[in-house]
Amino acid sequence: MSKVGVIMGSKSDLPVMQDAVDILKGFDIEVEVDIVSAHRTPEKLFDYGKNAHERGIKVIIAGAGGAAHLPGMIASLSPLPVIGVPVKSSNSIDGWDSVLSILQMPGGVPVATVALNGAKNAGILAAQILGSSDKCVLDKVLVYKEGLKAKVIESAKDLNDN
Amino acid sequence: MSKVGVIMGSKSDLPVMQDAVDILKGFDIEVEVDIVSAHRTPEKLFDYGKNAHERGIKVIIAGAGGAAHLPGMIASLSPLPVIGVPVKSSNSIDGWDSVLSILQMPGGVPVATVALNGAKNAGILAAQILGSSDKCVLDKVLVYKEGLKAKVIESAKDLNDN
Amino acid sequence: MSKVGVIMGSKSDLPVMQDAVDILKGFDIEVEVDIVSAHRTPEKLFDYGKNAHERGIKVIIAGAGGAAHLPGMIASLSPLPVIGVPVKSSNSIDGWDSVLSILQMPGGVPVATVALNGAKNAGILAAQILGSSDKCVLDKVLVYKEGLKAKVIESAKDLNDN
Amino acid sequence: MSKVGVIMGSKSDLPVMQDAVDILKGFDIEVEVDIVSAHRTPEKLFDYGKNAHERGIKVIIAGAGGAAHLPGMIASLSPLPVIGVPVKSSNSIDGWDSVLSILQMPGGVPVATVALNGAKNAGILAAQILGSSDKCVLDKVLVYKEGLKAKVIESAKDLNDN
Amino acid sequence: MSKVGVIMGSKSDLPVMQDAVDILKGFDIEVEVDIVSAHRTPEKLFDYGKNAHERGIKVIIAGAGGAAHLPGMIASLSPLPVIGVPVKSSNSIDGWDSVLSILQMPGGVPVATVALNGAKNAGILAAQILGSSDKCVLDKVLVYKEGLKAKVIESAKDLNDN
Amino acid sequence: MSKVGVIMGSKSDLPVMQDAVDILKGFDIEVEVDIVSAHRTPEKLFDYGKNAHERGIKVIIAGAGGAAHLPGMIASLSPLPVIGVPVKSSNSIDGWDSVLSILQMPGGVPVATVALNGAKNAGILAAQILGSSDKCVLDKVLVYKEGLKAKVIESAKDLNDN
Amino acid sequence: MSKVGVIMGSKSDLPVMQDAVDILKGFDIEVEVDIVSAHRTPEKLFDYGKNAHERGIKVIIAGAGGAAHLPGMIASLSPLPVIGVPVKSSNSIDGWDSVLSILQMPGGVPVATVALNGAKNAGILAAQILGSSDKCVLDKVLVYKEGLKAKVIESAKDLNDN
Amino acid sequence: MSKVGVIMGSKSDLPVMQDAVDILKGFDIEVEVDIVSAHRTPEKLFDYGKNAHERGIKVIIAGAGGAAHLPGMIASLSPLPVIGVPVKSSNSIDGWDSVLSILQMPGGVPVATVALNGAKNAGILAAQILGSSDKCVLDKVLVYKEGLKAKVIESAKDLNDN
Repeated sequence: MSKVGVIMGSKSDLPVMQDAVDILKGFDIEVEVDIVSAHRTPEKLFDYGKNAHERGIKVIIAGAGGAAHLPGMIASLSPLPVIGVPVKSSNSIDGWDSVLSILQMPGGVPVATVALNGAKNAGILAAQILGSSDKCVLDKVLVYKEGLKAKVIESAKDLNDN
Repeated sequence: MSKVGVIMGSKSDLPVMQDAVDILKGFDIEVEVDIVSAHRTPEKLFDYGKNAHERGIKVIIAGAGGAAHLPGMIASLSPLPVIGVPVKSSNSIDGWDSVLSILQMPGGVPVATVALNGAKNAGILAAQILGSSDKCVLDKVLVYKEGLKAKVIESAKDLNDN
Repeated sequence: MSKVGVIMGSKSDLPVMQDAVDILKGFDIEVEVDIVSAHRTPEKLFDYGKNAHERGIKVIIAGAGGAAHLPGMIASLSPLPVIGVPVKSSNSIDGWDSVLSILQMPGGVPVATVALNGAKNAGILAAQILGSSDKCVLDKVLVYKEGLKAKVIESAKDLNDN
Repeated sequence: MSKVGVIMGSKSDLPVMQDAVDILKGFDIEVEVDIVSAHRTPEKLFDYGKNAHERGIKVIIAGAGGAAHLPGMIASLSPLPVIGVPVKSSNSIDGWDSVLSILQMPGGVPVATVALNGAKNAGILAAQILGSSDKCVLDKVLVYKEGLKAKVIESAKDLNDN
Repeated sequence: MSKVGVIMGSKSDLPVMQDAVDILKGFDIEVEVDIVSAHRTPEKLFDYGKNAHERGIKVIIAGAGGAAHLPGMIASLSPLPVIGVPVKSSNSIDGWDSVLSILQMPGGVPVATVALNGAKNAGILAAQILGSSDKCVLDKVLVYKEGLKAKVIESAKDLNDN
Repeated sequence: MSKVGVIMGSKSDLPVMQDAVDILKGFDIEVEVDIVSAHRTPEKLFDYGKNAHERGIKVIIAGAGGAAHLPGMIASLSPLPVIGVPVKSSNSIDGWDSVLSILQMPGGVPVATVALNGAKNAGILAAQILGSSDKCVLDKVLVYKEGLKAKVIESAKDLNDN
Repeated sequence: MSKVGVIMGSKSDLPVMQDAVDILKGFDIEVEVDIVSAHRTPEKLFDYGKNAHERGIKVIIAGAGGAAHLPGMIASLSPLPVIGVPVKSSNSIDGWDSVLSILQMPGGVPVATVALNGAKNAGILAAQILGSSDKCVLDKVLVYKEGLKAKVIESAKDLNDN
Repeated sequence: MSKVGVIMGSKSDLPVMQDAVDILKGFDIEVEVDIVSAHRTPEKLFDYGKNAHERGIKVIIAGAGGAAHLPGMIASLSPLPVIGVPVKSSNSIDGWDSVLSILQMPGGVPVATVALNGAKNAGILAAQILGSSDKCVLDKVLVYKEGLKAKVIESAKDLNDN
């Protein structure tokens, strides 16, 4: 079965990254969560990146803050699509550091970057990637989008009823 | 057969976006190129976004500059994964405008953003997304990565031979 | 009678956007408020933009945060003057994202952008636009400006009396 | 007849500001062009701002670079809608100075800001403001928007014919 | 006797600007405080700027936030040295707006800009300007600088005693 | 007689700093020019800062680029008013480095900062400082300001004659 | 015995700079702490910079906020490696001022800059510099790095146990 | 004998990084140059980082552009001091990306960052690090600093002779 790997540089990133896990579970997609630090566990980084695609992982979501090297290094090591989540950590310079060190990858090694702290969108994007070749997941994405719409319509109704 | 749709907001984006087309052709992936302006052809935007997944498109790459709304609006309309390429247009404020208006999508509607003018990486990412469920494309990505490595090794050798 | 349409991308924008409504009511201008999300209700966006000028709307005020596409997409669809209010949402990168994705519109499709969270000024600007062809509203604007002046003069007096 | 006043802080702004004049003439709207420097001709600034609405001017377009005070000061003095064009002058800090000193007006005194060097859009916006109460100008705006669409459709056709 | 004029755009700037008043009183320099809003009381701005040098004012300190036009407009109207204090107001974009709209004055009309919220330094600078031609004030500045030194030496001693 | 000291961190700053010298000579103010590098000639920095006010210097203009410490260090050492000119050097990060390292001085030690590359304004500001206590210089400043106005009026006339 | 000198511009920097002291003590490296203000105690700055290398100091760590001149001025005066810690002080413009005024040193006078508020890393870097020629310290650095790794492995285990 | 390792992410970084090599040769320090790409040759990165300190390397200088992960990843793998040189590559966002992705390293893994394109300073810093424990190199640094001073004194003399 298809799996999405969700990794982060530090346990302190979990409150942000949990959004990706939750949304994927809502799509009934299997998720595997781990902590992999590019700077403190480089060997684990290497193993993870080299082997993920041979363990049934189809998409990797990697979140990190500051000089965030985890998403880019995983993208260096793995042939899978890697989604990067810039996390606004303490002592960050307003989040610019994590955004730029994930987004601005050199030619040859892309990272699919989402918004600052945008782990929820990372989860949806992973579902869309799986849905690209899996009609069942694609249909769930379509249903999800209808749900977004319904909530807006309802809140507009509330606004004008009051 | 799987297809990638490459769209851009203006013909002036073509010199940048051609890199995506070229790299995809190098992976033998079918590409369909079009100009779709969120601001000048909103009806075409609507048709494109609503129907792409029913025409055999599996991934959409959308490039735009300035207040770049094309990638996000396509992501609003389509259930497919959308890759956004911020293009540094003339009168851009150093590219920040296109980067931020593509990257900072609200929760629910992700765009997989690549680096400023990073159309080449958008093409590789599209291949990785297809490769996620297609062993043949995945193998091509692995070969491509070996090629990147070989070039660096060679240039390092040149450096030390001189 | 002339109407101003005030729309926003999400109910969470209402505390900011209410300032526009209040100031317009203070000018006795009819206001119509709605929630229209470019990313979650694209069909409603389309209908709103295409038809507003045929429903008696004279000016549209649109507020949104993050990658704020609502003002620009409405400007794409409507021939009316569109005033954009960048809203500083949570997870915004200091408001730069909404400012730039509203301000930096391409040639051909302007958005009249006001300051970050500047909904009050959006309301005044809408009144000035109506006042441009309506002597009665223009006179109210002149009175409003006298009121601003009077408050400063008074606070200067207070300062020097203490 | 309705007139749009186009003013700028220095003759060196003319190459940028001419776009506003040209587009307005294309809409058959009467334009009056002048140089008014907030910092070097403050008396002229005062006269212009105080009297424009009594001379038949309906909308004012003001362009300036660097610490750009012209649009905001005119907005302080006139009840008319004022459109501000940030001009990227030499020694500008990437245009941020003119953008922020025009956009970030305090509550009470709005400036309708357009993109950096966006004088063309300032002209279109002025036409839309006049069109808001003048059916004939509104129709011209609708035709203009159709023209934008046609050019994109044509360039898309060219792209796919080659 | 020499006087320094301290003005600000709004009463809400007083908590910041009071630092300038306090430091000047500490130097026994006469201070005159007023509220002058470039955008809401343009006539008062004009009178103040045109006449200050004829009323015995020797240096003007002007503080304002957001699109801060007060210091530059006073500099436009007065031949006196004008010190600008960028105030970080609410809804400011991190203070960049007030800094750039005060600092980046065009050639011909300087504003002596100090740090964000740096009203204390504005007061010291005004004293230094008076001291430049007044030996008595210069000596007070020298004493003040000795005081700064003494406090650092003392805090260093404390640090190493504990 | 009153003298203005103009110093810069490197001979490469001279093309920018010459504007200060020229404008001061135009006001018949005596100027003394020197190269003083905070980072390469710290002893000369010390001597200059400690002694300038005893050699008849009344105002110091200091220009430097990158991590520009010259103006602030001179302000640390001298009781005179110090005007800082941020110079946009090669390898500067768009000038932000020199602007911020001159402007953001801590409480107690002001630098009167002018615009990026704004040496001309530094010269005028020095003249205004001298003029604050010297009627003859003040009158020259008033004449200079009339000259600025006349040029704008003339260029406005040219514009409308053509 | 080798010593590291830790200095800061103000006692208010101590909460940040203490991290450097603590980590060095953890490596059993002798530390000497002092307050040296570039702007308020320039003579002490001079003495410190000129003499540190003759007092047994091997590495200097200097922290400062705002227009942070202390690290660069010490680097100007001393032949020792100087590590600069940008401190995010109150009234800082988001820390950019201290980062840029420490990092962007001109050719000839380097400062080894660490992250905003990164005093802990400054301490580790000082240990690495000493370790470069001292096998005993190098081994401690290796042990420290193993400790970092162990903590991540443990937190990953916790995550998956729950 | 002591060696400095100079590495860079791509041959295109050589024109910038050559400055480090040249200055080190001027200090008679042995230099070893190589190309090591974090993203394209991750295995070589690993070998280099793990083994450099066992091959006689004492300091590592690593330069890279864009999302620059080379310096940080080497710092992750090696116990040696690592100096990072942000290189302003094409498609960089004004250099901010490389600066922030090198500078903002998390606690535990420092990189000694120098200015944008500051390879010359990286070389001098490496010499200072070696000089910290090697009197002979320290003396060369002192001589080098005297040379900097002499050049400034001479250019000041030229200035005043003309």
